[in-house]
Amino acid sequence: MVTVNRNYLKLPGSYLFSTIAKKVNIFQEENPQASVIRLGIGDVTQPLAPAIIDSLHRSVDEMGHRETFRGYAPDLGYDFLRDAIAKNDYRDRGCDISADEIFVSDGAKSDSGNIQEIFGTDNKVAVCDPVYPVYVDTNVMAGRTGAYSQEKGCFDGVIYMPCTADNGFMPEFPEEVPDLIYLCFPNNPTGGAITKERLQEWVDYANRYGCVIIYDAAYEAYISQEGIPHSIYECEGARTCAIELRSFSKNAGFTGVRLGFTVVPKDLVRDGVQLHRLWARRHGTKFNGAPYIVQRAGESVYSPEGKQQLAQQVAYYMRNARVIHDGLQDAGYSVYGGVDAPYIWLAVPNGMSSWEFFDHLLSQAHVVGTPGSGFGANGEGYFRLTAFSTYENTVEAVERMKKM
Amino acid sequence: MVTVNRNYLKLPGSYLFSTIAKKVNIFQEENPQASVIRLGIGDVTQPLAPAIIDSLHRSVDEMGHRETFRGYAPDLGYDFLRDAIAKNDYRDRGCDISADEIFVSDGAKSDSGNIQEIFGTDNKVAVCDPVYPVYVDTNVMAGRTGAYSQEKGCFDGVIYMPCTADNGFMPEFPEEVPDLIYLCFPNNPTGGAITKERLQEWVDYANRYGCVIIYDAAYEAYISQEGIPHSIYECEGARTCAIELRSFSKNAGFTGVRLGFTVVPKDLVRDGVQLHRLWARRHGTKFNGAPYIVQRAGESVYSPEGKQQLAQQVAYYMRNARVIHDGLQDAGYSVYGGVDAPYIWLAVPNGMSSWEFFDHLLSQAHVVGTPGSGFGANGEGYFRLTAFSTYENTVEAVERMKKM
Repeated sequence: MVTVNRNYLKLPGSYLFSTIAKKVNIFQEENPQASVIRLGIGDVTQPLAPAIIDSLHRSVDEMGHRETFRGYAPDLGYDFLRDAIAKNDYRDRGCDISADEIFVSDGAKSDSGNIQEIFGTDNKVAVCDPVYPVYVDTNVMAGRTGAYSQEKGCFDGVIYMPCTADNGFMPEFPEEVPDLIYLCFPNNPTGGAITKERLQEWVDYANRYGCVIIYDAAYEAYISQEGIPHSIYECEGARTCAIELRSFSKNAGFTGVRLGFTVVPKDLVRDGVQLHRLWARRHGTKFNGAPYIVQRAGESVYSPEGKQQLAQQVAYYMRNARVIHDGLQDAGYSVYGGVDAPYIWLAVPNGMSSWEFFDHLLSQAHVVGTPGSGFGANGEGYFRLTAFSTYENTVEAVERMKKM
Repeated sequence: MVTVNRNYLKLPGSYLFSTIAKKVNIFQEENPQASVIRLGIGDVTQPLAPAIIDSLHRSVDEMGHRETFRGYAPDLGYDFLRDAIAKNDYRDRGCDISADEIFVSDGAKSDSGNIQEIFGTDNKVAVCDPVYPVYVDTNVMAGRTGAYSQEKGCFDGVIYMPCTADNGFMPEFPEEVPDLIYLCFPNNPTGGAITKERLQEWVDYANRYGCVIIYDAAYEAYISQEGIPHSIYECEGARTCAIELRSFSKNAGFTGVRLGFTVVPKDLVRDGVQLHRLWARRHGTKFNGAPYIVQRAGESVYSPEGKQQLAQQVAYYMRNARVIHDGLQDAGYSVYGGVDAPYIWLAVPNGMSSWEFFDHLLSQAHVVGTPGSGFGANGEGYFRLTAFSTYENTVEAVERMKKM
């Protein structure tokens, strides 16, 4: 008899952002006149930069002629893109990462969901709490956790590292040593950034105990302060303990274009096996490359025009972040993040729960945010707003919230 | 201590097409003057059709303007594409499949690799032998098999259904009833097509025993004969036992564009769970949609101009198939397939092994094919050639093989 993967059934309800989308759709149907402003899901709103549009048109034309048509891409990505990444994101920052340690993919969500596959199901997983749900859910689906406790708001068998106002939203070393440690900095959802000194301590910890850090640096383009690392490979020893996930979604507006990459250094060996070899095997077996035109678009992100245009785009969003941060602080909210990240994390007022505040904000201000509790038990009482809307809508949303 | 997924270590050597690519690269380096013709990997060579190029340019322009920019796609695909698929591929063929049973993805390789995830690891898997390696390898990686036997050329715990000249390359019902049955028709690698009557017997079998058929119809556009089903849902009762995988790679030349879809009917329930719900959860958690511009390109495949242009493209490749089929038959080879599929399956002459013939063909004729043994033990002694090259190269390759 066919059995299903019953680990899936441990997941409580649907994926956070699907739930939010459904709630907003219902509200919109019942209130067709309401002008809803979405500061919830971390989706960008600015159009693709001209350098990227030009690159896409050029490569589309190539696909229309026999001489320049491209079929299957190389398993792990085109060299032109892997070379550009290795130079710009790593060598230019003093990181020792070579092009053949870079695996091009269709985005960081796929990679952050799939990376756990190369590990045994007996590994103990540690995550920050609150956390991007994909890290946890994909480990649940793989059977690396116990059941979900509705009461505690967490899964048995997972090590949760609380990130709260008390510890400045920075995880502390857990009591029990984990095997796989998911870290995301600048952080989603709290918007916090880790210093190089603190990240070095995590690298040292992982090397000391033989852990693997899965480091999600999807938001590195938003770092504005000195002393905040853009890559974990800025830390000494990271080549023997860390995998890094990167995305083009937020630095280049590729949420609807789909491109990302994962770095697995060849020095990273566990259980007697080079992890690079396993991830290459997964890519070669279950993935057929990112589209040629999309990889060319990714290449243009590193062109002089691309860099200049995208710096402006990031600056545009970071102005929104300041509008939210400063506006809500003026209105008396406790506000965190928004300096090195496009996310603002605010303490929900008046003892409301995160979902109560979600409903309140949607019905009163017609503003959509993300309930902190959707990111974990320690997110309860918090709320995430994103800087990815237009400037006009961001200003309007903050005005509405001030009047609430 | 971190453990790796040791199931990966059961896989013998690297993925078939990576091995071939490496061999060809070495040959090219050693023989830089040789003009190698590739009839190996099933990659297309014709440029994208004008209707598709136009659609891509239009949607790229949309991405460059704030008013028409698109961020994250809906989890399961844009309605415009799902509706076009439901109408053209299903309703117009009399199949009862609705748009919300269609899951848009980045290609059939990903889907055929990922679909096994929603099932328990205790399911018994049946595959044809020879077989597209992804079905087997991904089940190995998930721990659904035992070790690989070098001697037998197969994995313990997998039910292999021999497809040989003796049974006309059509699988017979296995002695042991499997749980998951992978079928691919028109077949890769043998090029054989299944009749509707025979496929109906498989559907009845699956419904009787509670199996699930994973039906890969990636090559349906190449069917030329009447009475050959384009979809398993042409068979009565398939909604309660079959998942169908489809691709835009071969009917529209999207190998480097990346688009596919999977159909999971809502009536398909196993172990008390709707499989549609599980696959939706996987998509929502581990995938972030195919690119907007690629989904628009997919939509244009169903436009009147798209249909007309792609019919010509398929006809172009099928002319190649006839050139190979008839040319090699004239030269005394035993040749199969090539009528309803872009693959020609030939018996290797003179008692050579498949890999010996590969090396012989590469060194003597500078033609690349795929060794049948790469698809399974029963592929030994056979060799796959594809119709996806240019007409000129196909004619030249056959001439060289005749002279060999």
